[in-house]
Amino acid sequence: MKITTRREALFGQLQTVTRAASTRSAVQALSGVQVLATGGAIELRATDMEIGLRVPLEGDIVREGSVVLPARLVVDVVRALPGTDVTLELRPTEQDVEIVGGSATFHIRTLRSEDFPPFPEPEGDRVLVPGDAFVATVNKVARSASRDETRPVLTGILVSATGDELRMVATDSYRLSVKETKLDEALSGAFEANVPARALQELTRIVQHENAQELAVSVRANQVVFEAGGVVLSSRLIDGQFPNYRQLLPDAYEHALRLAGGEISEVVRRISLLAQKNAPLRLAFTEGELTVSARTPDVGEARETLPVPFAGEPLEIGFNPEFLRDGLEAIEGGDVVLKLISPLRPGMIEAGDESGFQYLLMPIRLNV
Amino acid sequence: MKITTRREALFGQLQTVTRAASTRSAVQALSGVQVLATGGAIELRATDMEIGLRVPLEGDIVREGSVVLPARLVVDVVRALPGTDVTLELRPTEQDVEIVGGSATFHIRTLRSEDFPPFPEPEGDRVLVPGDAFVATVNKVARSASRDETRPVLTGILVSATGDELRMVATDSYRLSVKETKLDEALSGAFEANVPARALQELTRIVQHENAQELAVSVRANQVVFEAGGVVLSSRLIDGQFPNYRQLLPDAYEHALRLAGGEISEVVRRISLLAQKNAPLRLAFTEGELTVSARTPDVGEARETLPVPFAGEPLEIGFNPEFLRDGLEAIEGGDVVLKLISPLRPGMIEAGDESGFQYLLMPIRLNV
Repeated sequence: MKITTRREALFGQLQTVTRAASTRSAVQALSGVQVLATGGAIELRATDMEIGLRVPLEGDIVREGSVVLPARLVVDVVRALPGTDVTLELRPTEQDVEIVGGSATFHIRTLRSEDFPPFPEPEGDRVLVPGDAFVATVNKVARSASRDETRPVLTGILVSATGDELRMVATDSYRLSVKETKLDEALSGAFEANVPARALQELTRIVQHENAQELAVSVRANQVVFEAGGVVLSSRLIDGQFPNYRQLLPDAYEHALRLAGGEISEVVRRISLLAQKNAPLRLAFTEGELTVSARTPDVGEARETLPVPFAGEPLEIGFNPEFLRDGLEAIEGGDVVLKLISPLRPGMIEAGDESGFQYLLMPIRLNV
Repeated sequence: MKITTRREALFGQLQTVTRAASTRSAVQALSGVQVLATGGAIELRATDMEIGLRVPLEGDIVREGSVVLPARLVVDVVRALPGTDVTLELRPTEQDVEIVGGSATFHIRTLRSEDFPPFPEPEGDRVLVPGDAFVATVNKVARSASRDETRPVLTGILVSATGDELRMVATDSYRLSVKETKLDEALSGAFEANVPARALQELTRIVQHENAQELAVSVRANQVVFEAGGVVLSSRLIDGQFPNYRQLLPDAYEHALRLAGGEISEVVRRISLLAQKNAPLRLAFTEGELTVSARTPDVGEARETLPVPFAGEPLEIGFNPEFLRDGLEAIEGGDVVLKLISPLRPGMIEAGDESGFQYLLMPIRLNV
C-alpha cells in the first residue's frame, strides 16, 4: 500500500475516525486505525467492536493495499508533520509504514491486520431521516440512558421512526425521557431499535461536524448502520426487551404547574449545592408558593421560596437534585410544566411549548 | 460577625484567595477561607501552611468578628447566588454563617477557627521589584524546579535581587535554568531566598490578575512575604543549601551553534513522538547538518535533518526529549544558541538575544 494525500485532510479524517478506536481492549488492533486503499478509493476505519466508523479520504493511490496503525500515535504524528502533503507507504519487510511529510520521516510499526474485524456493508432498506431533527431528539433524551453495564438494556436509547414521527426513549429506572419529534415529511420507511446511547451521541457529533442534512439508517438483525455526509457509523444493537414505557406514564396528575424554566432551573441549581452525600432536594408546595430546600448534615442547609400557581393541600416531595436538574435543563428556555400526584408518585416535567418532551422522575421518600 | 458586600466583589476575591486553601490536609480548617472583619476592614485569608494568601474585600461591617468557612463550598454558593448584594452573618448558637443573596438563604457550618493559623504581618525592610520583570523571570525558570519532595531544596527557585539585577535559578539535577534580568532602576535593597516554585507561580498569577506594577518583597528568617496590588502572599522558605550553580556551568564549549528557535523546537517536538518509554532523543551533528532522531522499540522511529552551521568531527549526543523541549520553548521566538562540548558533557541552550537566559541540560548516554 502506498498513498499520498493532503496533511490537513488526513488529520481531519483521522480525528473523526479514531473516536471509535478502543482505548482499553486487550486486542491491540482495536486501538488501531485501518487505512484501506482498494478499488480506487481510500477509507479509514476504526472500531472497538461496539461501534465502528468508516470515513473516506481524498488522495492518490500509488499502490493498493491496507494496513492497521496505532490510532493515537498516527494522529499525533500527522498533526505534527511539516509540509502540506503526506505519503504513507507500507514496507512489508520492516512491517512498518513509512510516513513522510516535508523533511520528516516516520516509521510506524503496523498492528496485526488479521485481528481487525470486517465491517458491515450498508445494504437493504435505508430510511432517510433529517439530520437536525435526529440530533435534537438524541440530545433531549441521552442523559437519561443508564451507564450501568449490569443492566445493558437500559444503556440504550429506543429509537422509533414511523410516518412523520421520530421518537426516542431512554431510562435508567430513576428517570425516563421521551421525545417525540414531528417531521416535516413522512419517512420512506419505519424502524425501531435499541441503540447504545454512546453510538447515538457519537453520531450527533458526526452529523454536526459533517453538517449532514440527512442521515440514512439501515437496521439489521443485530446491527444498525448510519450514513451521514460520507461517514458510516455502525453499531451493535442491544439485546433484550426495552421497558414498556407507556405503562410507566401516569394517566392523570393532581397538579399541573406552569413555571418559568430558567428561574426554577437556577433555584434548583443553587439549592442543590447543599444537597450533598445523596441528600434529596425538597420541594414544598403551599398556596401560591414553592420552597426549595436541601440539607447536608455537618455542612449546612439552603432554602429559597418562589411564587408558583399552586392551590390545594400542601405537598412536599423529594427528588434527586441532579436528576431534577437534568430534566429541567433538557427544556432549553421557555416554560416548563411540572405535574405531580403525591409525594410517593413520580413527577412529570414537560416542555411548556408542547414540543413533545416528557421527563418522568421518581421521588425520594422524605424522612419528615 | 456580620458584613454586607457586592456579590461580584466577594466572588472575585474568594476565587483569588481559595487557591491557597488546602485540598487534602487532615486539618479541616486549612480547607477553609477565613473572613475577618476587624478594625473597620474586611479581609479574606487562606493557607495550606506552605503558602498563605490575604486579600481585602470592600463592604460594610455591621458587626466585627471572624469565621472560617469551607472554601470550595462558599465559592460555589456565592457564584450561584441571585441578586447583587450578599450578607454574611455568624449565628453563634447554630455554629453556622447565614449567607443571604436575593431570595436565597444558605446556612453554612463554620470550621474550627482555633485550627486556623495566624498570618505573618508584612514588616521590616521591603524591597520593591517591578511586577512584569518578576513574572517574566519566574516563567523562564519555573519548569526546571523539581517536583520531587524527597529533595526539598530543589523544589524551590533561588531568587536573588541586588542592584539593578534580578536573578532566579532552578534545577531538578537533570537541568538547570538561570535567568538574569536587568532592571531599569536599581533596587532599594537586596535579598536572596529559596522560595517554593509553587508560591512563585501562584504569585505570577496574582501579579497578572491584579495588574500590579510593583511587588513588595520582605524576607525573614523562615518566611517571605510578597505584596501585590493589595494581595499579600506569604510563603515558607526552603531550608538547606541550594546548589552552587556557578560551579556547574562549564567554562568553555567546543561548539556554539546559532539556530532558528521556532524551527528546532518544531523538529524536536515531532521527533519526540517516537521517543517513548524513556527513549532518548538523538542529535547527530555532521558538517553543516543536524539529524534529530528517536526510536521506540516495537513502536517505530522518526528522523529529520536540518541545516546547521556545524563544523568539525561528527558528534552525536542524546537528551531527554521533554527536557530539551522545555529549554527550547523557554526561549520564545528568535534564535537559540546551542553550546556543546562532547557527548557526555552537558549541553547549554541560551537565548540568542543575550537576554540572560541559560539552560544547562545533562546528556543521556547513547548505546551506539
